[in-house]
Amino acid sequence: MKTDIEIAREAHLEPIQTIADNIGINANDVIPYGHHIAKTPLSLIDEEKVKNSNLILVTAITPTKSGNGKTMTSVGLSLGLNQVGKKAIVALREPSLGPCFGMKGGAAGGGYSQVLPMENINLHFTGDFHAITSANNTISAMIDNYQFQNRKTGKALKEVVWKRVQDVNDRNLRSMISGVGGNANGVTSETGFDITPASEIMAILCLANDLEDLRTRLENITLGYDFDNNPFTLKDLGIAGAIVVLLKDALNPNLVQTTENTPAFIHGGPFANIAHGCNSVLATKMALSYGEYVVTEAGFGADLGAEKFLDIKCRNAGIAPKATVLVATTQALKYHGGVPQDAIKEANEKGLRNGFANLDRHIKNLQSFGQSVVVAINKFHTDSDEEIQMIKDHCAAQGAACEILEAFVHGGKGAVDLANAVVNAVENNPSSEINYAYDLEDSIEDKLSKIAKNIYGADGIELTGKAKTALKRIKRLGLENYPVCIAKTQYSFSDDANALGKMEDFKITFDDLIINTGAGFIVAKSGAIMRMPGLPKVPQALHIDFVDGKIEGLS
Amino acid sequence: MKTDIEIAREAHLEPIQTIADNIGINANDVIPYGHHIAKTPLSLIDEEKVKNSNLILVTAITPTKSGNGKTMTSVGLSLGLNQVGKKAIVALREPSLGPCFGMKGGAAGGGYSQVLPMENINLHFTGDFHAITSANNTISAMIDNYQFQNRKTGKALKEVVWKRVQDVNDRNLRSMISGVGGNANGVTSETGFDITPASEIMAILCLANDLEDLRTRLENITLGYDFDNNPFTLKDLGIAGAIVVLLKDALNPNLVQTTENTPAFIHGGPFANIAHGCNSVLATKMALSYGEYVVTEAGFGADLGAEKFLDIKCRNAGIAPKATVLVATTQALKYHGGVPQDAIKEANEKGLRNGFANLDRHIKNLQSFGQSVVVAINKFHTDSDEEIQMIKDHCAAQGAACEILEAFVHGGKGAVDLANAVVNAVENNPSSEINYAYDLEDSIEDKLSKIAKNIYGADGIELTGKAKTALKRIKRLGLENYPVCIAKTQYSFSDDANALGKMEDFKITFDDLIINTGAGFIVAKSGAIMRMPGLPKVPQALHIDFVDGKIEGLS
Repeated sequence: MKTDIEIAREAHLEPIQTIADNIGINANDVIPYGHHIAKTPLSLIDEEKVKNSNLILVTAITPTKSGNGKTMTSVGLSLGLNQVGKKAIVALREPSLGPCFGMKGGAAGGGYSQVLPMENINLHFTGDFHAITSANNTISAMIDNYQFQNRKTGKALKEVVWKRVQDVNDRNLRSMISGVGGNANGVTSETGFDITPASEIMAILCLANDLEDLRTRLENITLGYDFDNNPFTLKDLGIAGAIVVLLKDALNPNLVQTTENTPAFIHGGPFANIAHGCNSVLATKMALSYGEYVVTEAGFGADLGAEKFLDIKCRNAGIAPKATVLVATTQALKYHGGVPQDAIKEANEKGLRNGFANLDRHIKNLQSFGQSVVVAINKFHTDSDEEIQMIKDHCAAQGAACEILEAFVHGGKGAVDLANAVVNAVENNPSSEINYAYDLEDSIEDKLSKIAKNIYGADGIELTGKAKTALKRIKRLGLENYPVCIAKTQYSFSDDANALGKMEDFKITFDDLIINTGAGFIVAKSGAIMRMPGLPKVPQALHIDFVDGKIEGLS
Repeated sequence: MKTDIEIAREAHLEPIQTIADNIGINANDVIPYGHHIAKTPLSLIDEEKVKNSNLILVTAITPTKSGNGKTMTSVGLSLGLNQVGKKAIVALREPSLGPCFGMKGGAAGGGYSQVLPMENINLHFTGDFHAITSANNTISAMIDNYQFQNRKTGKALKEVVWKRVQDVNDRNLRSMISGVGGNANGVTSETGFDITPASEIMAILCLANDLEDLRTRLENITLGYDFDNNPFTLKDLGIAGAIVVLLKDALNPNLVQTTENTPAFIHGGPFANIAHGCNSVLATKMALSYGEYVVTEAGFGADLGAEKFLDIKCRNAGIAPKATVLVATTQALKYHGGVPQDAIKEANEKGLRNGFANLDRHIKNLQSFGQSVVVAINKFHTDSDEEIQMIKDHCAAQGAACEILEAFVHGGKGAVDLANAVVNAVENNPSSEINYAYDLEDSIEDKLSKIAKNIYGADGIELTGKAKTALKRIKRLGLENYPVCIAKTQYSFSDDANALGKMEDFKITFDDLIINTGAGFIVAKSGAIMRMPGLPKVPQALHIDFVDGKIEGLS
């Protein structure tokens, strides 16, 4: 089979104005970025249509290092829905540049289920991440300048908590001392960089319901604390308007197309292990304004992405999925069932059955949220009919529909069965209203405990000294009614990336609680999760090249 | 009179495809970024036409803090040339975001001589600076990762010289210790950030003659030195291809339009005090391919911008201006003549005459390069007829043409006299071949001495211990044949920003010589010049806002 990039190159792309026109958007209303990408103004959102469309969430079982093919499934399902006569649109996150050059490669689907032009989407795209980086770091420069200019006035803050970001994996910037070398070089500070997808600005852009909401959230960002322990916000710094100016174009969702020329809105990109993990509210609403079915994705496993999609994004935006697709592969199931990585392609009935513990907890969790669950088996050519049938039988026993998906190889035609299962779920067995994992009125400890116990299957939680100190501040400031955004490894229900299989008798340790008064949540950082990734021994950058006018090494 | 942003908003903009079509570029060949900005593929450059067009350099006398209106003059002159029947195009640098939010405001001309859409040009534009920042900092992460992964192999370098950049004024990042907090956070390093316009990647993008040249220059970047003092390049690191991929779109010049709907290519933006200070070779060549006259600008005063334009850019690209316009204002002349800042708008014959020393040295310098010089007086309504006549008489005595320019108030109609003077210079008294300020075969000390003595009027140069050590390395590596790119204050011929007037009896001290084997020059850093600006007490960001769908506070 051809590589992703070969398939992408051979696809016939329609002018983006044609794609817009096909779904009822006036071609003159979109703002082109090249011939195949456009930004869509927020005035195109129709809240009435938003209410009447069908939102489908795609999530997954706990991933292996190579993932489960969730983005590919999301794209493929939208193609399948179009195949069965539904007007479907897919809404996805934008890939981050850092991982493209590090470990992960691109993130624009795969095989015959991709969003295009994949090279642009995986690289600078429409510059949204760069705008977020600029906004974030302009704030850093301004707050450090405030400290510098006020070092003799008594108005300087006791503590600055705002960090810089960049969209490059760079472990050397995780922790640093800035402002060294004397007075002309600023105020010496212990600080660091996170990756741009972990910026609170990214979360704000993704949660904002409109331009005014963006401004209000920006104004509310806590940058630091004065010597009386009062918060100092972006509004206090006086530059919220300048930051709005830096973000006003980035706020508009991006329209592209799939390998089968159906529309895709790709906008915003918080990671699901270190941030809230789903595309912007505005892109979802834009898609819901023009699609009968909208397929959207939440990052990593359902314990992380789907939980935050439901408890944070849906609660904030007043939207809810009619059904949830849970992606699984025989290989990931066997891996969770204790089969060594190098043997997971071989038939292994016992290993597969052992792996059902992971699948079952995700199904049960999603059902506890009130979701109508359809399991999608992302089928590989090494999968046997017996293995597929075992999974189907098992899902039936759990009250979940189950279909295979061959959209990687066959595009939309490979997703017809799954599409029919989803339509059946929406029409005959839709999700109930969302039964959130916690109430906003719960204390922060209770919110964390409920997620840990009811979603992860832990016995409870522990807070480190640092987290306890942060919790005191949260209580003192009256911020306990915020939702929690858990930062945790994506490879296990626990906070230990190596703990696989049926997890029992464990606790989740939170080592920091970060106050995000702009995004409007508390980031609960668990275990050893880092908000700035490093690079592997052999980064993907070594394989990326531009040869004869073509990009090599992106996938 | 209306503000710049009001004039910009009221201007009628043509679709960018129309602008392209007007100069003979097929509308389908440009890549739109919105409705009024496009990128132009390099295949549109026609080297034969490049040779037959007329290049006009716009430079200025030593500026005050508020500048001389050089960009406005460049735009205005192109409008004036169109008014007198010449097909003229202006080629300019892209503004840097950092200063827009700091001290300087925007950089897209002013009044009725602007390039539009000024808000986009002054903000993220087509993302070129962001691409350069990404490329620069991906290299940083990769070289630090190389050090990290090789900390036990013996292959780690002794010294890494590559710095990070960002397009935000941030004094706190000038000097820093990265990689603190233990082994997981990388290798502890003393390092820092420059502003993006000072990145060697910016210089490379602006000097590259084509895509292959870009790649070769990138491969040649020196990142550090091993324990045998051998250089370690980007080619050695193995990621030149990945960096080309990050820059391939940024390499295409950007097409916009002026307030009078004439074409403008705006591309690349090295500062002239800390870098080589002119727009990309490719934008200049693109403009020369479609214009009969091409007006281009070199940053800050002629001692900095014009010297580097001629000695570095023209020598590298094989181009040469037929005439050079030297912008002066009565206010700047009086300022250099010792009149206090708050009195420079008042008539002061003696002060004006004292200021001629600055004008004369710039005229003499440009003439020494073989340039046909036309002085442009950027006229303010406070200027008296007597003052203007004094300057004209004085210029005539120096063998330089002189005309006033009222393009700020009147657009192209205010630049007709200047345009005629420029056409007259090109047709009847063109520049000779460039007589460079130094030969490439000169030693580095001789190059620096020749510029210091013959251009700045200094008695000679001094090298600090650090610069002497760097010079030894340059000699050892056989890099003495590179041109020198002087980083020096823009406010004086000397290296002291406060030394004005007729400068005598001074030396230029160089405190570092930075090897740029990709750009192909040695950055000679003089005095206290910083390659990362700070923010003032009241940054411009405090005045920037987005109100009723309109940006306020950019100019």
